[in-house]
Amino acid sequence: MFGSQEGRAPPRDLGPLFDPRSLAILGASATPSKWGYWLARSALKGVKRRSVFLVNRRGQDILGQRTYPSLSDLPQPVEMVVISIGAPGFEQAVDDALAAGARAIVAITAGLGEMGRDGRAIEIAVTEKVRAAGAVLVGPNCLGVADTGSKLDLASSEFGVGSIGLISQSGNLGLELAITATEAGVGFSRFVSVGNQADLGVTELIEAYAAHDQTRVIAVYAEDFRDGRDLAEAAARARDAGKPVILLTVGSSRAGARAARSHTGAMVSASVAVDAACRASGMLRVRSPRQMIELAQGLLMLHAPRGRRVGIVGDGGGHVALAADMVTELGMALPLLTDELAARIGATLPAGAATRNPVDLAGGGEQDFFNFERTVRALAASDEVDAVLLTGYFGGYSQESVDFARRETQVALGMAGAAEESGRPLVVHTMYPASPSIRALRSRHVPVYSDIQSAVDVLARLVERSEQPPSGVPALPAPHATQPVPESYFEARDLMAAAGIPFVKACQVTKLTEAQAAAGDLGYPVVLKALGTSRKSDRGGVQVGIAGEGALEAAFMEMKVRLKPPAFSVERMAPSTDGVELIVGVRRDPSFGPVVVIGMGGVYAEVLQDVAVALAPLTPEVAEQLLRSLRGAPLLIGARGRPSLDISAAVRIAVTLSQLAVDRSDIAEIEINPVLVGREGTLALDARIVRMGGGR
Amino acid sequence: MFGSQEGRAPPRDLGPLFDPRSLAILGASATPSKWGYWLARSALKGVKRRSVFLVNRRGQDILGQRTYPSLSDLPQPVEMVVISIGAPGFEQAVDDALAAGARAIVAITAGLGEMGRDGRAIEIAVTEKVRAAGAVLVGPNCLGVADTGSKLDLASSEFGVGSIGLISQSGNLGLELAITATEAGVGFSRFVSVGNQADLGVTELIEAYAAHDQTRVIAVYAEDFRDGRDLAEAAARARDAGKPVILLTVGSSRAGARAARSHTGAMVSASVAVDAACRASGMLRVRSPRQMIELAQGLLMLHAPRGRRVGIVGDGGGHVALAADMVTELGMALPLLTDELAARIGATLPAGAATRNPVDLAGGGEQDFFNFERTVRALAASDEVDAVLLTGYFGGYSQESVDFARRETQVALGMAGAAEESGRPLVVHTMYPASPSIRALRSRHVPVYSDIQSAVDVLARLVERSEQPPSGVPALPAPHATQPVPESYFEARDLMAAAGIPFVKACQVTKLTEAQAAAGDLGYPVVLKALGTSRKSDRGGVQVGIAGEGALEAAFMEMKVRLKPPAFSVERMAPSTDGVELIVGVRRDPSFGPVVVIGMGGVYAEVLQDVAVALAPLTPEVAEQLLRSLRGAPLLIGARGRPSLDISAAVRIAVTLSQLAVDRSDIAEIEINPVLVGREGTLALDARIVRMGGGR
Repeated sequence: MFGSQEGRAPPRDLGPLFDPRSLAILGASATPSKWGYWLARSALKGVKRRSVFLVNRRGQDILGQRTYPSLSDLPQPVEMVVISIGAPGFEQAVDDALAAGARAIVAITAGLGEMGRDGRAIEIAVTEKVRAAGAVLVGPNCLGVADTGSKLDLASSEFGVGSIGLISQSGNLGLELAITATEAGVGFSRFVSVGNQADLGVTELIEAYAAHDQTRVIAVYAEDFRDGRDLAEAAARARDAGKPVILLTVGSSRAGARAARSHTGAMVSASVAVDAACRASGMLRVRSPRQMIELAQGLLMLHAPRGRRVGIVGDGGGHVALAADMVTELGMALPLLTDELAARIGATLPAGAATRNPVDLAGGGEQDFFNFERTVRALAASDEVDAVLLTGYFGGYSQESVDFARRETQVALGMAGAAEESGRPLVVHTMYPASPSIRALRSRHVPVYSDIQSAVDVLARLVERSEQPPSGVPALPAPHATQPVPESYFEARDLMAAAGIPFVKACQVTKLTEAQAAAGDLGYPVVLKALGTSRKSDRGGVQVGIAGEGALEAAFMEMKVRLKPPAFSVERMAPSTDGVELIVGVRRDPSFGPVVVIGMGGVYAEVLQDVAVALAPLTPEVAEQLLRSLRGAPLLIGARGRPSLDISAAVRIAVTLSQLAVDRSDIAEIEINPVLVGREGTLALDARIVRMGGGR
Repeated sequence: MFGSQEGRAPPRDLGPLFDPRSLAILGASATPSKWGYWLARSALKGVKRRSVFLVNRRGQDILGQRTYPSLSDLPQPVEMVVISIGAPGFEQAVDDALAAGARAIVAITAGLGEMGRDGRAIEIAVTEKVRAAGAVLVGPNCLGVADTGSKLDLASSEFGVGSIGLISQSGNLGLELAITATEAGVGFSRFVSVGNQADLGVTELIEAYAAHDQTRVIAVYAEDFRDGRDLAEAAARARDAGKPVILLTVGSSRAGARAARSHTGAMVSASVAVDAACRASGMLRVRSPRQMIELAQGLLMLHAPRGRRVGIVGDGGGHVALAADMVTELGMALPLLTDELAARIGATLPAGAATRNPVDLAGGGEQDFFNFERTVRALAASDEVDAVLLTGYFGGYSQESVDFARRETQVALGMAGAAEESGRPLVVHTMYPASPSIRALRSRHVPVYSDIQSAVDVLARLVERSEQPPSGVPALPAPHATQPVPESYFEARDLMAAAGIPFVKACQVTKLTEAQAAAGDLGYPVVLKALGTSRKSDRGGVQVGIAGEGALEAAFMEMKVRLKPPAFSVERMAPSTDGVELIVGVRRDPSFGPVVVIGMGGVYAEVLQDVAVALAPLTPEVAEQLLRSLRGAPLLIGARGRPSLDISAAVRIAVTLSQLAVDRSDIAEIEINPVLVGREGTLALDARIVRMGGGR
């Protein structure tokens, strides 16, 4: 089901897609409101580099260019064919394209989806033919392809030249990203609108972009993931090649539809599985097109921050105070500068300047623009900060006069140079993003934002990235055939116990007398559970702290009448003092495979939503990272006067459970909630397994 | 210390400040790089409406206008004087201004702060003179005043005409807000840069703006709060007058400096006290200038949403899917449209359109722009949603041709009209914010954003506002003299118990034999606490679940050696089953007075940070709202199979403690952590009081 690196096919040659020596537009049009017109016009921009043929049934001239009535009338074979005709003629068009020599086909054709089953059958048939011919197909239902390096524009979006490689499942979002990037002064190396991904998909394109020199950052908008593990592996390899992948996806609003049968099932939505894949692969998830471009700006900087210490510079108290609040709220540090550095910074500033960090030039910037450069340079060159954040008015002086603009630009270039020389990043917020001095900063890859929150958010993201390298995408073994996995409570306990997980003592009973005998053996206080119901505790099927026979009888009879369970479990009451309850679970996601969730457990699990997720199987290192990332981690570690608990035993349980879920591909959900972590060892207090397609 | 409504002075006449019949600029300059030049130039814009006199020692002409060597040389009295000269001449300048008849003085003069104590003394002396003369003073150290209605511009920022009344403690942030607002197509009614607030402060200006017809939204940037309760009361009255107050403030990064002596002290920072004031007054807190303008756009809409159901419209799957995710992630609802409404919407759309919500026109918008209007109108007019969100390409068609722009603008006006007629808001995200059709939307007060996240954030904020009316700013009684409040553990318990708070049984002991006797009386298991240390549990000064004499001896001796406490408390161990531990505390904030914090308690208090805050004293209604707003509220309410707990008893404790803190103005911090909430009643398990200026 899930790919592994060994099974990976060698990369296909995508040269004909991104830099064809010749191309034909099938369905070129002379009517300016039609897509076939825009395509022709865009394609013709590249005629100096390649032959462009326009194919139109009626044979009329288009944009002063002669056309051909069919692909078979072309005077020479073509490397690429763009198909921009209706769904009914699509299959024949692909045949014709291959016959015309096409090694790459871009299928704009929409409407196959509306043909239902037939449309899908056509896609499959066409893809087989394309692959058999050693060609590649983009789409159908795509909005085109662009390569700014090879001057290929088959998208008619205004993609400026730059280093972002874009892969998008939505044409309009691709367009919004193009517009936003232009405003931000960054551009694109390549763009592919993948459409229905009949042949070429997101994963293969990530691989191709990772090997593409002009691409430095890969931006992906994906609405669905085929084999999510393969995609995550490709993203991890791209990251290792120095090409980080930024991911924008959708679908969380649809998640509510799926009924969960365990707490784990409820907590590990498709969106949470994506988070786990990001953690493993180093993909950087964003929530909006704006965020995507803002983060890309940060990633295109020459240097990344190597720590969380930020030096803030501005010419005005309000701006630096706001920035200081945001920096600390996002967990970065604002170190107090040393006397020596503060004195150096203050030397050319007015008496009222703040020189300890944040640095407020207090009018010193307006007096002499070069004070901005001196201050940024002193901070960047020092060992006291890892990044410099400039905020506020800088950029605005250029408005006043040509001379001011010249001097301000000189200062901008000086600041960019200071950052380059120091190896420390400079991030800028300005009220005047369109000024020449700001353009100068951007030309030197300094990221500039007109919203201070964006500047600080990106900086925080870069710091987090430098501090938390991805854990790696774990390989999944081929699933081996076994007995069907059991779902009943005691069988689930047995399966987990056999894997080495320690459980609290329990007896299955059906009658009150059996329950009383079991309680006598175990010793009061005991716990009574009504079996046969999922999420027992949510339905009043668990009574803890039963102190004696009378209480046991009352609880037993009440549950029997209300829940009519097929059986009960009588269990020893675990000592609650000093211990912490966790939930550990795994859910098999249709795209990303088994995903582990660890969190504060018991009744707190879904209430507090204090959880961390990762792709299974876990290594002990990743399991410990997850535990330590919980808000409730101080309770485990032993802060605030509490004893330190047995984290390594909790790690063992998580690793074991994740391995169990990986080994048994018929496990849909598996969880222990709660597992009690004590000073020595752990004790599982409940168990639940949901079979693939099974369960109540 | 804190004002109450009874003591409120009648409002002063600020007419001379915002619409003077005559004004003089003291320190006007002919040098274009000087502030006195900009001021003169800006002031002269209003000459049709008022007399403007320029005062310059050297008497040279400025901007072709004659000048006067001093205020006493003016040909007539002036209603307003702007002082733009150095600090040394400031006091004399104020005397001269008053002598010249000034009823309003705007003091740009900076540098008094750098004069230290002397500067402050001058401010106080000057303020007394100004008030004695029945005049008002803005500043010193301010950047001016503007009133777009009266064409008064003494700020030389480009404030467009509109309905936002701005009060700012930072000149540059005022400028950034002006720029951001212009981009967003909204403008200002008034602007005051308050500077040092020697006389006129933020609170008095909020009151004046609330009574100003052209002002519809009040935006405040404040760096410090004098009497925060007065300010909150003014904001609450402004809100009641239909003028919501948006607040941007700073200082959270400085909060770390204060050492906390209780959990409450650690949790109620100055920033948290501001949150409590916002909750009480209905002030809307924002985090950045960008957010401030974005929210103002939303508040300037003609209609507010009356519920959380959102209908989403776009022409493309990616955009509507993104919007749908964001809407649900922020807790709003995406109701499935009825068959009837979906059929009506789908009637003119292509077969592939999604008509259930989100509505994806699937090319139907491009085919016929009026499909946007039909869909928005159908949604707005239905009873199935409370607001309509349009996202994506709309606005972009205007680029194609003059005819497209005309038709798209017609559609825009139709959509605005549909929203107006329905009484339901329309919020728009577009990739083309500068297009004529978008300008048309803005002219009809439809808020438009170029970032979909901004559009959804604002909508969520407006929904929250409609659903959670402010609780009101509670009045503070005059503090009455009492015995100094005690700080020791048993005295603190006694004080709270006398107020009606039930405490667990406890005995103070110093010797082991006393401890053993006490434990015998109380019955094992017991709890042993080492007294005399703040935040006992953080320092290992609390041992729970001591089961017998041997364990008691061990715990006693260990703590005695390690902590050397002056005394111990032996307490009955409270039953932990089914109960929930809360923290309830009050901290006296220097600006906002007593602030209550309620949260998940015990060891979880600071770890989970699941808290809610409000100004003291609490009403039972507010106390219950706080409890129900906790993430852990389901544990109290009895969701997920747990018994419902005695919320009204928890409410009583919070109300009582808040009243105690209000009555006793020498209480700096008071808290119970934890208080155990059971099925019937509550039990306080610890107590702590920190005296003003006292404590260890």
